[in-house]
Amino acid sequence: VFFCPSCRRRFSTSQPRWRCDCHSYLLGEFNASLSHAPSGEDQRSIWRFRESFGLSGGARPVTLGEGSTPLVTRRIAGREVLCKLDYLCPTGSYKDRGSSVMITKLKEWGIGEIVDDSSGNAGASVAAYAAAAGIRCRIFVPTSTSAGKAAQIAMYGADLVRVPGTREDTERAALQAASDTFYASHNWSPHFLVGMKTVAYEIVEQLDGKAPDWVVTPVGGGSLLLGLYDGFRDMLRAGWITDVPRIAAVQSTRCAPVYEAWRKNLCDVPAVAKGETAAEGIAIAAPVRGRSILEAIRGSKGVVYTVEEDAIWQMTRSLAEQSLYVEPTAAAAPAAISSMVADGLLQADERVAIVLTGIGLKATDKIVEHFFFEGRRGNNAPPR
Amino acid sequence: VFFCPSCRRRFSTSQPRWRCDCHSYLLGEFNASLSHAPSGEDQRSIWRFRESFGLSGGARPVTLGEGSTPLVTRRIAGREVLCKLDYLCPTGSYKDRGSSVMITKLKEWGIGEIVDDSSGNAGASVAAYAAAAGIRCRIFVPTSTSAGKAAQIAMYGADLVRVPGTREDTERAALQAASDTFYASHNWSPHFLVGMKTVAYEIVEQLDGKAPDWVVTPVGGGSLLLGLYDGFRDMLRAGWITDVPRIAAVQSTRCAPVYEAWRKNLCDVPAVAKGETAAEGIAIAAPVRGRSILEAIRGSKGVVYTVEEDAIWQMTRSLAEQSLYVEPTAAAAPAAISSMVADGLLQADERVAIVLTGIGLKATDKIVEHFFFEGRRGNNAPPR
Repeated sequence: VFFCPSCRRRFSTSQPRWRCDCHSYLLGEFNASLSHAPSGEDQRSIWRFRESFGLSGGARPVTLGEGSTPLVTRRIAGREVLCKLDYLCPTGSYKDRGSSVMITKLKEWGIGEIVDDSSGNAGASVAAYAAAAGIRCRIFVPTSTSAGKAAQIAMYGADLVRVPGTREDTERAALQAASDTFYASHNWSPHFLVGMKTVAYEIVEQLDGKAPDWVVTPVGGGSLLLGLYDGFRDMLRAGWITDVPRIAAVQSTRCAPVYEAWRKNLCDVPAVAKGETAAEGIAIAAPVRGRSILEAIRGSKGVVYTVEEDAIWQMTRSLAEQSLYVEPTAAAAPAAISSMVADGLLQADERVAIVLTGIGLKATDKIVEHFFFEGRRGNNAPPR
Repeated sequence: VFFCPSCRRRFSTSQPRWRCDCHSYLLGEFNASLSHAPSGEDQRSIWRFRESFGLSGGARPVTLGEGSTPLVTRRIAGREVLCKLDYLCPTGSYKDRGSSVMITKLKEWGIGEIVDDSSGNAGASVAAYAAAAGIRCRIFVPTSTSAGKAAQIAMYGADLVRVPGTREDTERAALQAASDTFYASHNWSPHFLVGMKTVAYEIVEQLDGKAPDWVVTPVGGGSLLLGLYDGFRDMLRAGWITDVPRIAAVQSTRCAPVYEAWRKNLCDVPAVAKGETAAEGIAIAAPVRGRSILEAIRGSKGVVYTVEEDAIWQMTRSLAEQSLYVEPTAAAAPAAISSMVADGLLQADERVAIVLTGIGLKATDKIVEHFFFEGRRGNNAPPR
């Protein structure tokens, strides 16, 4: 069932629905299980973990082979850090895990047309899976979205609507459009979160059944953070692991509502004023699932950090020079590790994992502008 | 050993070498075997197939988790076609399979500095693996190379050298630079080809041990085509499959030296004059391994097709609208399938596979220019 964390109402999942009648977001209680180890039959996609999705037997997976991404070790802030290369999902971002499950459910519901709003990655992902499912799709993005993401969305055949103003203006425009179609939002859909749990499953699988001690993750709307937390708790309940990793959530100093709420010990996340940041993917001034995000951070004995623009760009460069080419948003989380080390949070024998969320090729325009036209580091000929 | 197909000399692989003393390219006879099914121990990388690489036991893999890419089915020219999504390799192109093995060998040799020339994808791939191996790297590209690829190469920390003029001018510049360092060229290295064989292994693995009847592949320098052919022959010898698939090699009409040579029944591939093409990755006027390419096509009872610019762009769009977002070069091969159908080459029950080589995000600049500024199809708002 769908379950409302605010007014506590419950709804059957047999009917399409994206929020509660009281306008709160919904949680999913999908009677999922994690009894068996994943089968080897379909080795390459999140659908190995299907029994944990709690979908009906009749739902036919809309899949592009998302998941099963590499886990490699790189040196960050003097420590060996496990890097989950989730930017190698089919559309170049981790969102594909969520989109695959969400679009599968929408198709089962018989939805023929959807809208979503996005800073870019979720929009590209939803557009791709909608295309695979034959669902018509309109995606609202802010005009500031990287050219790479905008072109990608349009190429998948989605109607791309560029909205001037803030990310929040974009959300409002999408919500208005959703009044006469279905709002298939990664920020609202409980099924999207279900797909995100597979990141946690895979990390444990790749560590031979052991959970890391820490997971450092960017947080914007919270789908990755909540997916990780839910996934690790599934495994704890199933007896696969003995502890849930501590979650270090990272935001840009330019847009840090979760950090503010956590610091003030609030139960929900009030909206903040925000500035422009290289971490466009997590610049969410008022996350829908703020309450759940704070619960997950606290439930994992976690922490919240903020990182400056310079640190984000430097980490983007540093990861690339270690062969991992990601967009700036993905560099925010590893950029916080040096502070965690300085604060004495990480014990010498503790294993730290990060999830690298978006491929660098999505942000060519911004990367070129920053590194090759501002002359800060430009020892190479500018790439155009 | 290294083996020269021209003067027949043989060289030990214990010493670094990239061509024969007679200036021909070299073939590899690496005493490889394919006796066992791949182990499940390292499920996600080409190094599952290590025993078929013929490397010494001491060589330590330089790997980013390349390979293990999805295989999905899409409708192309009215047929169900198996699409190997090799653009989901770590740097966004299939070249990573070759780079992983080549750079591993260079590291074993103790090479500290390399040069390569590339239209972009191989350069990005070699730069990434060199970064992972701690090898200094200089990459020569034509000035016409997509901005996405150029930025990526520079971000990996390679010295990016942009050469005005043709792809061949770029090659000459790299060869000149190679006189005082090592020429780590995907177009010359037999170890690079060894890595490419894994595409064939994986396709057969994903088809439960059966080879497809046809593989339609773009051909420029020939590393993919030769890797496929060698890989399928390995499996034939090992008794895993009963037939090598027929290879349909595809070139742009603007640069079709292999097609010309094949049509004239030549044994080697003379250089041709060429024009600008959207398929920048296969615009090679004089492929180094022309002789081997023709042998492989004929050995597989294959054919060669050329495709027009319009067909390449239309297929780029059509694949994206079916959720597969690739660069135009990758669309050249599927664009030939309609001609193969029209020519009656494909029987109704024959299985056709294609390898999609490069991610669309590499070519954002060219895709935006073509689809959104020329107004040909632009029913969406332009992405920037």
